[in-house]
Parts: sequence; C-alpha cells; structure tokens
Amino acid sequence: MSKALPKRTENYSEWYNEIVKRAGLAENSSVRGCMVIKPYGFAIWEKMQRALDDMFKATGHQNAYFPLFVPKSFLEKEEQHAEGFAKECAVVTHYRLKASPDGKGLIVDPDAKLEEELIVRPTSEAVIWNTYRNWIQSYRDLPILINQWANVVRWEMRTRIFLRTAEFLWQEGHTAHASKEEAEAETRLMLDTYAKFAEEWMAVPVIKGSKTQSERFAGAEDTLCIEALMQDGKALQAGTSHFLGQNFAKSFDVQFTNKSGELEYAWATSWGVSTRLMGALIMAHSDDSGLVLPPKLAPIQVVIVPIYKNPEDLSQITARIEPLMAKLRDLGISVKFDDDDQQRSGWKFAEYELKGVPVRIGLGMRDLENGTAEVARRDLLTKETVRFEDLSIHIPTLLEQIQTNIFERATKFRNSNTFSVDTWYEFEKQIESGGFVLAHWDGSPETEESIKQATKATIRCIPFDGPGEAGTCVKSGRPSARRVLFAKAY
Amino acid sequence: MSKALPKRTENYSEWYNEIVKRAGLAENSSVRGCMVIKPYGFAIWEKMQRALDDMFKATGHQNAYFPLFVPKSFLEKEEQHAEGFAKECAVVTHYRLKASPDGKGLIVDPDAKLEEELIVRPTSEAVIWNTYRNWIQSYRDLPILINQWANVVRWEMRTRIFLRTAEFLWQEGHTAHASKEEAEAETRLMLDTYAKFAEEWMAVPVIKGSKTQSERFAGAEDTLCIEALMQDGKALQAGTSHFLGQNFAKSFDVQFTNKSGELEYAWATSWGVSTRLMGALIMAHSDDSGLVLPPKLAPIQVVIVPIYKNPEDLSQITARIEPLMAKLRDLGISVKFDDDDQQRSGWKFAEYELKGVPVRIGLGMRDLENGTAEVARRDLLTKETVRFEDLSIHIPTLLEQIQTNIFERATKFRNSNTFSVDTWYEFEKQIESGGFVLAHWDGSPETEESIKQATKATIRCIPFDGPGEAGTCVKSGRPSARRVLFAKAY
Repeated sequence: MSKALPKRTENYSEWYNEIVKRAGLAENSSVRGCMVIKPYGFAIWEKMQRALDDMFKATGHQNAYFPLFVPKSFLEKEEQHAEGFAKECAVVTHYRLKASPDGKGLIVDPDAKLEEELIVRPTSEAVIWNTYRNWIQSYRDLPILINQWANVVRWEMRTRIFLRTAEFLWQEGHTAHASKEEAEAETRLMLDTYAKFAEEWMAVPVIKGSKTQSERFAGAEDTLCIEALMQDGKALQAGTSHFLGQNFAKSFDVQFTNKSGELEYAWATSWGVSTRLMGALIMAHSDDSGLVLPPKLAPIQVVIVPIYKNPEDLSQITARIEPLMAKLRDLGISVKFDDDDQQRSGWKFAEYELKGVPVRIGLGMRDLENGTAEVARRDLLTKETVRFEDLSIHIPTLLEQIQTNIFERATKFRNSNTFSVDTWYEFEKQIESGGFVLAHWDGSPETEESIKQATKATIRCIPFDGPGEAGTCVKSGRPSARRVLFAKAY
Repeated sequence: MSKALPKRTENYSEWYNEIVKRAGLAENSSVRGCMVIKPYGFAIWEKMQRALDDMFKATGHQNAYFPLFVPKSFLEKEEQHAEGFAKECAVVTHYRLKASPDGKGLIVDPDAKLEEELIVRPTSEAVIWNTYRNWIQSYRDLPILINQWANVVRWEMRTRIFLRTAEFLWQEGHTAHASKEEAEAETRLMLDTYAKFAEEWMAVPVIKGSKTQSERFAGAEDTLCIEALMQDGKALQAGTSHFLGQNFAKSFDVQFTNKSGELEYAWATSWGVSTRLMGALIMAHSDDSGLVLPPKLAPIQVVIVPIYKNPEDLSQITARIEPLMAKLRDLGISVKFDDDDQQRSGWKFAEYELKGVPVRIGLGMRDLENGTAEVARRDLLTKETVRFEDLSIHIPTLLEQIQTNIFERATKFRNSNTFSVDTWYEFEKQIESGGFVLAHWDGSPETEESIKQATKATIRCIPFDGPGEAGTCVKSGRPSARRVLFAKAY
C-alpha cells in the first residue's frame, strides 16, 4: 500500500480506476480498448460464470460454441440488426502476413485478400440463426435452448475498464421456440434468472422492466433489462433479455412444420450478461478502503494472518490454525493462510481490505494464551474478539450475515436514492444530483429524445412492478399512464 | 438412425466424419474452416476443461484473460516466432462498416483503416510477454503461473473437424520464472499433467518425449509432447509443453532483479491442449457402432430406457426406477431416463450406442416381475441380467471397469502397433502399414527431412523412457545413440 485511495465523494471515477488497479483486478492492455483481466479479477469472474452457468443448466439450457467470425453478408440480413451492429466493429480483410520486401518486419500480403470480409462477432444472432436453419425442421426440434460463453468485439471509441471495452467476455443465450408465448416466457425467465443472480450472488438490487423502443436491442421486438444504481447515483444496465419475434427466423429463413403440418417461422430470444458485471460489482459495494466483495463471489472468503515475532511463534500459531482451516474448507469456504514473512501484518491487513476479502482472522501469541482470535469483517470494517473454539460455527454464519448486510445496505441506498418527481423543474434538479428518478412520460420517442438532450438522462426501463397511476408527462405535459425510470447511466 | 456407419477398416476418414456428425458433436459452419461445437460435443469438452482446470489449479496456476488481438509489431519481435506464426492468420485492417453508396448492403469504410494491423491471436506469447514486462521487476514477482482458456485462429488451408480448424478452443499456460531450472521443471510438470489427464481421464495411453529441433514450437528452446496412436495407425500429438528459455523475455525486455541484485531476463514456459483432444478421444476408442466414451468424460454416464406398452406400465417402471436414479445421482453419476414416447426402444438403443453412453439399463414389465434389469455396456457391446437391488452397487463398479477396460484396450492396441525396425526396407514397409515405429536416427535435420520426404513419416518424439541402446540410423547408416519414435501423423 503506497498512498490512500482517492475518496468516492471527491473523484468517483478515479476511485474506481484505482480500485481496479490496486486490487489487481484488471488493466488496460497495449491493444486499444482491450483489457487484461488479472488473476484476482478473473477468479471473481469465474465464480460469476459458475453460478450463472449452473442457473442456465437448471433451467434446461446447454452450452455450445459458434464461430468467432460473421461473414459481412450475414450481418446485412436483418436490417435493424445491421444498423445497430455493423458499424464499429473489427473487420478481417486478409488472411496472411509476409516478410516485408525491405527485409524489415511483416506486411499484409495483398494476394491474401478475403473474397468476403469477416467481422469479429459483436454478438452472434446472425451466425447462430444461420446455423439453426439446418437444425430446425419440425416442432419436434424445438425448443432449442443454447448458451455460449464467448468473447465479442465492439469498436467503442471511449472505453472504460470492465464497463465498456472493445473486447469483452460474456455469455449469450440464443433460443428458438415453436410459439410466441413460449419465446416470451423464455425472455422473462432469463431476465428473472439475471435478477436472481444479481441480488442473491452479487448482492446488487435491481429493477426489472422493459426498454423503450429507442433503447431496444437492434433487431428485437422487446428488450427486458435489469437496472442497478451505483454509488455515484448513476444507473448501470446489468443484463438484458430480448424477445426477437420472428425477425431472425425470417431473415435467415428458419421455418418449421408445426403440429398442424403448416410451415411457420421460429420464434427467438437472446439474452446476455458480460464482464460489465464486474464493474457493477465493484461500484455497488466498495468503499474508500477498497473493494468490498459479497462472500458468495469472493475468491478468498477468509484470510488468516498470523502475528508473530519468530519462527517458533509461527509454528505454534500454524499448529493451532490448521484444524480450523480444514473444518472451514470442508464447509466449502475458501481460506487463505498468509504466513509470508516478507510483509508486516499491518501491510497485510490493508492489502486484504483493498482486495475486499470478507473476513480476516488475526491470531497472535496473546490470542493463543487467551483462547481467542480477532475477527474483522470487511463490510463494516469492525473487529471483534471471538473464542477460538467458536470460530468454526461463527465464521460460516458471519459470511452469511455479510452477504445479507451488503445486499441490504445497497438496497437501502438504492431506495433512498429513488425519487418520484412531477415537474420539469424538479426533474432537471434531481437528474443533476443523481439517483433513479420515477417520472411520467408521454410515451413518445420525441419527448424521450428531448429529455435526453436536455439532461443526459435516459429511460432506464418501464418497470414491471411500478404503480399504474396516471399523470402528466414532466416534459410535454401530455397524459401518461404510469411512471418510468429515468437516470443518467454508464 | 438411418443407415449404418461406414466401417473403420473400409473408410476410416469417413467413419470419423460420420461419428462427429451423427453423434451430434460438431459440424462445419458457413465460415470457412470454423466449426460449430454442438451441445453434446461441447458437454464433453466442458468435462475435459473442468478436469484440466482442476489439475492446473492443484499445481498452483491461476486463470487470467489477455486480448484477442496481437498488434503486428508484437508478432515481429521474436524472430523465429514471427516466422512460425505470422503467416496464415486473420488480419484486422479496419474498424468500421458503412452503408454502401448504392444502397445495397454494407462496405468496409475506407476512412476507418487501422494505423497498425491487428492479428487475431494464433497463440498469445507475444501479447502476454508484452504485459509481463510491467508485472516483473524483482525475483519476488516470480514465478508467474498463469493459464488462459481462449479461442485462437490459424488460417489453415486444409481443415478437419476438431483436428485442424481455423478457429479452435484451447488453454494456453504462460509462466515466468527466476531460473532456468525452475522453468524446465515447470515444462516437465505440465507435460506430466497432460499425460496424466490423457491416460486417467481420456483413457488414451501416450508416449512422452521431446520434439526434434525441426518440429519445435517457433520460439521454443525445447518442446515436450505427448503422442497418442489412433486406430488407423496414425499418430496424434495430444499436447505440448514448451521451454522458451529467455527468448521472449529478451524480445519484450522482461528483466528482474535477482537475489544478488543483478538484472536478469526471466525464463519462460508455455503449454497448451486444444479441442483437438476431442478428435483424439473419438478416434482412439470408437467402433463401427459409433462413439465410445470413457465414463469420466461422458456427459451421460448411464441411460435408462423403459420398455413399455402403455402409460400404466411406464408409471410402474418410473416408480421403480426413481429411487435408483436418486442413489446414482447422489454418487455423482449422471443419469438420463429416456421416457420419450416418440421413439421405439430399439431406436433408442442404437442412438445411445452411437452417442457412446457407457452404460444402458433396459427395464420392462418382465424385469419388474423378476426383480431384474438388463445392463448393457458400450465398450464391449455386451448385456447381462442384474438383480435390481444390486444395481446401485453394480453400476458404479461397472463404470470404473469400463474406464479401465477402455484404457487397457487402447494400451494393448498401441503396444501391439509399436514396432522396432532396423533396416530402411523394414522401415518403409512398416511406416506404410501404420503404427509407431521405433528406429535409429543419426540426429541430423537433413536425415529427418529426407525420411519425411521418402515416407511422410515424422519423428513424433525422442521418448523419455526409450532404451538407451546404440545402433545405426535406418536411413544414413550413421551411428545413433537411441531409437526415436516415427509415425505418419494427423
């Protein structure tokens, strides 16, 4: 630990960057817009992947893998999709390098130009629906419930580590169904799955709703989303689930014979979450001492730091702690014993705080004599003295308490930063100072756009469970059937 | 099941393609040289990944993720590496598409040309060592033991599903060490890990050894490999582990202060296995009835097929089988109960044979009366009648027996197809008819090349545990200290 972190209240953006850097989560690479996810950051992502993957499989999905490249002509097929995705992307035009004639380095071989350019997938609807055409003939072939874990590339001009990078990791589910109702139910099921994951694993409360037409995924008939509130009062879209209707089936000619023997186009959904969730996780819980991780996603849940003066002390402490570590590991708890003698215990305390390890146990010679240990919890930055023999019961309970507490704290923050406003004056003021703003909107894309121009706020979603009260649009004064959720967003 | 599979002895290549297709493992995509890995194939790959990943972590490695793109200038830095990898590769030259002026489709935007071309990674040494430069200052920063699971692209002209594809999935380990000895030990440790995985999980016996200089990885000082023998008598390289010396540290200027306070270049290794292992798995064990899977990697280990005439029969069978399924699942065995009433049981039997499910239990009304079940094992295609109450003990044991039997059968095949020959006449004849050929070689690249030209055989490896007997080279007649392993190879 060199100097202190920037404070959230002083420079939120710099605070975020420094946590990502100092906790060893990720860094920008030499390749523009692409990040290196470092081992500690990747270990968190792996925990997310495992939990999500289990949830996908529990809801009947299977994993598969489709090509990295999308031929240009595929992208052209679904018109709206092409408009949305065929802009900023990585285009492969050649398939060979050769030695430069001047003997210095390599050049692109002009003779190795591809007949058709290949796009590094920005998303895989096109390549997958082109494949599904051969898999779907009859209603008996449906539903197809497939997910893939993959890297995708969108040539973003302004990148921000984890939140918006040119290359990112994600999962993308692509399902095909025999009926509209079934596809709509799938769209909602996966949104609910994401919400459950966000709340139960990431400890991040989310608001579920539909996107407005202008915020929809390119090629979707409906986009559902979960929206979370960060500590700086900005919203972050944490996952989307799209009902694609028959758009892709029509573009790629995917028809099946239904039970009545008639040809019909298949119904589609797609849904995804990405390494962006890492950004959400960091920004939702962390504090001025560093990262705060929910125990369920922490690569190290408990760190044990021995406090000793000489090797004899250390071996006594080690002998005492080993049976406890074995017990905790049997319970599936990941424990690290840090007996590195190159660093002082004070340095270690700060380091594990920075890395967000939920529970720290300090154990010195005095503790050994007293039959106690010092237990520190990262979320509250509090310490307590616990009888050593109680630790194997205390620690698992404490981890659950921390998981719950982090979620409740984030929920309280979200609730106390959600505002209902009824006038344009209040609206502008509230958007300026941050938070979720529930306000009436007349339902027109023009008003939505003019609000965005005036305040930079977007409609995050039309919440599913918002009250159905009628009112008048904060901007246009025209009638509105219900409030929608506005915020400035990442 | 439409018609029978081609027989191995008649058309091995077609037999392989048909198994891949009919067992639902993978298919060629519309993108040249890229495959779609279908859910059943991907489930096998996931089992491989999980087992390997556990082994990597048990040996102290952590996962991370590095960019998909390698700037052209990075590839140029290590000369031999550049020669080996900067040839056939996917080159990104532009970052935008735009609407065609004629209104028809999309064109590459000429204004969006990259200043420096990006190569889709054919392997990640360059991009990783460029990153390690910032991570390594002191011997205290070493070793770095990192692995990544990733997709890579090599623009192969002749592709073959799983065995050689333009895009493939793999893991690549990249480690940095403070001493040559440590890096060499790591190289060997990971080779041993691969051999253990091949033998204990895939049930494929392998020969461990070093590559000759001409067969080495581009940029390596030594390449270790495991070589397996397929049923058509051709060898398949199943994994490689490279000692890279200080080559990449020098090219990317990665120096550290050693314990004596002196600046030194770091020592490197890299090691990888890929979806090629799927090809090895299929070709090593399968037969003319289809895929044969070792139980440890089978997505479905036991399939239960009820044989019934009416819904009452089925519900009786189901009631009987449920407690058994629960017991087997508690033991970690994956069980599928196939009560699909759209297909006859005979069709199902053939289907699960084709898919290589290790154990099939058939249960009809007669069995219910007798308190028995019919148990079929895929490896031997035999059936036996087992007392129903014994199944929960019998099945786990049987799965272990099948795992062992498949390995022993493959080992016996490999041993009886490994030949020691001493004359050029014998050598040519044996290479022509297939198998591993142990022969003396004078150690010169020229002789190696002339043998390759004459017979298409390559030196698969210089085996670690071959006998150290001296002799004379089969081709040149010059002295040789030991036999090396020749074969035609995939």
